[in-house]
Amino acid sequence: MKKYITALFAAGFAMSGLAESVKLPAPDMDGGFTVMQALKARHSERMFACSELSNMELSGLLWAANGFNRPDRRTNATGLNKQTIVLYVCMKSGAYRYDAKANELVKVSDEDLRPAVAGHQAFAATAPVSVVIAADTSDPIYKGGRGTLSCYDAGIVSGNIYLYCAAHNLATVCRASMDKEKLKKGLGLSDNMTLHLNHPVGHFASGSEKALR
Amino acid sequence: MKKYITALFAAGFAMSGLAESVKLPAPDMDGGFTVMQALKARHSERMFACSELSNMELSGLLWAANGFNRPDRRTNATGLNKQTIVLYVCMKSGAYRYDAKANELVKVSDEDLRPAVAGHQAFAATAPVSVVIAADTSDPIYKGGRGTLSCYDAGIVSGNIYLYCAAHNLATVCRASMDKEKLKKGLGLSDNMTLHLNHPVGHFASGSEKALR
Repeated sequence: MKKYITALFAAGFAMSGLAESVKLPAPDMDGGFTVMQALKARHSERMFACSELSNMELSGLLWAANGFNRPDRRTNATGLNKQTIVLYVCMKSGAYRYDAKANELVKVSDEDLRPAVAGHQAFAATAPVSVVIAADTSDPIYKGGRGTLSCYDAGIVSGNIYLYCAAHNLATVCRASMDKEKLKKGLGLSDNMTLHLNHPVGHFASGSEKALR
Repeated sequence: MKKYITALFAAGFAMSGLAESVKLPAPDMDGGFTVMQALKARHSERMFACSELSNMELSGLLWAANGFNRPDRRTNATGLNKQTIVLYVCMKSGAYRYDAKANELVKVSDEDLRPAVAGHQAFAATAPVSVVIAADTSDPIYKGGRGTLSCYDAGIVSGNIYLYCAAHNLATVCRASMDKEKLKKGLGLSDNMTLHLNHPVGHFASGSEKALR
């Protein structure tokens, strides 16, 4: 019966064109650099190979950024433990919301929104993946003087992404610029959602790691 | 001759009461958790043992947070590579500015400013060290709409501190609240300096690691 319902739901999503949500494998907790090695290697990289990230790499990257490391707490701290950060993953195949609890990419658009993330910096659309760091800032606490709390939260997530990438031989750079209007529309975001930062992520283009590190 | 001049300078500073700048040992790049292990262990801890941090721990912590990992670049990314983050270290013996280039703590006050960092949350003054994440926001770029750039920078530094601590069995929590007026006065900061976040850091109080992780 459960299988039947699942199939029915899958068919329903298929008709709406957003069938392909992606269940990610559990992140690989073994290997990678130590924190000190990763800090030594960390740098901003703007050249990427064309190759796609594996689902295992995506799983590790997103868990590192904003996953659950305890039943109700995250890898990233948030002000007052509000946990309002939401990650979107933009790829050639479409755009996805990272469901950290289910460890799943939930498709929100069939469109390749990497150019909207890149805005006027075309290089950023050449990475196979762009992670967008957004936050639900509808809580009144974010209005006025405490609005910066959500920015600090986004910065912490960016730091986690940098260190995951440095530890696992992935290229990335943190960017604050993007075509926010186009991106909000493409991702279907309400005005309650704030777009903070984005991280193109990919494998190193041949030689670029050595040249820029 | 050089020794004589150094001695003379030291004597001069001694008369002003701020002689005891601390040259830190080079950070230990070996050991500690992997990034994934550190992300698994990361949490906010508000209980600290009384024991002081060693200079080696301080060196690693501060390098991880905002050190140089290349001749002109840092362990932490900053928007437009402005590198305007400045760390202050408040301890029982006084308050110090972290000179990342010299790997030195430059004394800026003889006063124990941990209570000013703690503000109305007394627990925060019980850690042996409070790291204050400040930024020189005098550049016009930080005025108006791009003021958040500096907050993202501070968040990234906080993320680095969290992961260094998690990797090296140190307790910490990120805080946005502090007595900014008292702290600015105590540290001798101009209005160009913005106080963003602070991190009490210490060893785990007996049992607290296991209880709260």
